[in-house]
Amino acid sequence: MKTVIIGSGNVAYHLAKAFKQNNITVHQIFGRNDIELENISEKFNIPFSTEQLEDADFYLISVSDNAVEEVSSWIKKDDVLVAHTSGSLPMEILKGNYRKASFYPLQTFSKTKNLDYSKIPFFIEAESQVDEKSLFELASIISENVETSDYERRKYIHLTAVFACNFVNHLFARAKEISDSQDLPFQYFIPLIDETVEKIHHMEPKLAQTGPAVRGDERVLKLHEDLITKEEHLRIYQMMNESIKKMYDK
Amino acid sequence: MKTVIIGSGNVAYHLAKAFKQNNITVHQIFGRNDIELENISEKFNIPFSTEQLEDADFYLISVSDNAVEEVSSWIKKDDVLVAHTSGSLPMEILKGNYRKASFYPLQTFSKTKNLDYSKIPFFIEAESQVDEKSLFELASIISENVETSDYERRKYIHLTAVFACNFVNHLFARAKEISDSQDLPFQYFIPLIDETVEKIHHMEPKLAQTGPAVRGDERVLKLHEDLITKEEHLRIYQMMNESIKKMYDK
Repeated sequence: MKTVIIGSGNVAYHLAKAFKQNNITVHQIFGRNDIELENISEKFNIPFSTEQLEDADFYLISVSDNAVEEVSSWIKKDDVLVAHTSGSLPMEILKGNYRKASFYPLQTFSKTKNLDYSKIPFFIEAESQVDEKSLFELASIISENVETSDYERRKYIHLTAVFACNFVNHLFARAKEISDSQDLPFQYFIPLIDETVEKIHHMEPKLAQTGPAVRGDERVLKLHEDLITKEEHLRIYQMMNESIKKMYDK
Repeated sequence: MKTVIIGSGNVAYHLAKAFKQNNITVHQIFGRNDIELENISEKFNIPFSTEQLEDADFYLISVSDNAVEEVSSWIKKDDVLVAHTSGSLPMEILKGNYRKASFYPLQTFSKTKNLDYSKIPFFIEAESQVDEKSLFELASIISENVETSDYERRKYIHLTAVFACNFVNHLFARAKEISDSQDLPFQYFIPLIDETVEKIHHMEPKLAQTGPAVRGDERVLKLHEDLITKEEHLRIYQMMNESIKKMYDK
């Protein structure tokens, strides 16, 4: 399949890199941001353009959710396969008479951070079984964890990921505000954070819970509330503890 | 120093193990729960008792916060050093005429989970410089990361840890409720969770944030809210997204 990637964000960058690492030729990387495109182009030796979309058999649209529909309408050919990489969009968002698909990698991507692509789960959906099979095979070159998944399932995968990744990172960011306020090096907390995650490789998260709320330790909860000076921290503190107490009937 | 550990919970278990691994003799493990004490005693070859507290130079009290005061009053000798392991109690909670100290390991402990003690930060405080030095040296046998820390600082360390560990684990538990409700294997999310944490080894958590809220993607936020069926999940979802939006002025 002659392949073009559309987009130059974090996901597009890592897909271009994953394809390159696995000797899957990408014929063009296309988009609007010439600086980012040039960066990807140079790094992974892929021609780029901001103006002329190359003819191809497969277009992989990896742009922000709200741009997918518009970008998909740029593809005017019918006899091509077009997939987006979003966890929260149906295939039908793609506007054209071509064959439609979804190619969703479940990971958090930053350009500055290397990744082992072989561990990333890919979720594949296509209108036709033939396309689904070929995208499944394509993803399987990159990763050991490839599954088919319809939109309904994909939405819940994405929702779960928001809890398990986006919100978790936000807690790290808020935790760092607290440690920074006391000149405590955030490095102190890295072994604790590593172990928190290491635990759930082997234990049910529900059984791994520790801390004052699950112990019903009201003295410490009150002590902490008195330490907190930022309204946003107090809201998170109280809400998370209430939720923990509910889960364990404390 | 002739050493006795008091307690048989997760922290006592791991301290007994860490002492054993580093050839620091513990002369007795004392407490109320004979089944747990016997387990620790057999595993690490330490005599145990529920009745007769052994004479020692150093008593390390590792019991739940609300039991520390009572347990500390069992020690009737004056010329001994007594430390507790709590992040949220002052030394003065210890009730006796002995020399007082705090010996706080910053980690989440479960008996079923092995740990590399050399990476665990220990925070030491003692009434006298001599005791502080000897506890510092003791902790340094176990760990590479030993610091002195007064109660004020310890409280904030503990508060930060609640955000970075206890609340994070609770998000994993809530995320698993969502994935379970759709028969999605939680294993799908492990590479994502690993990467979320791996990232903050190298990046500021604030700069590593991804997801719909930081992008200001109201469509996805609404879509997810419509998928959520459990009130507790919706409260967390809305509150965390509000907090993310505030942090990034979205």
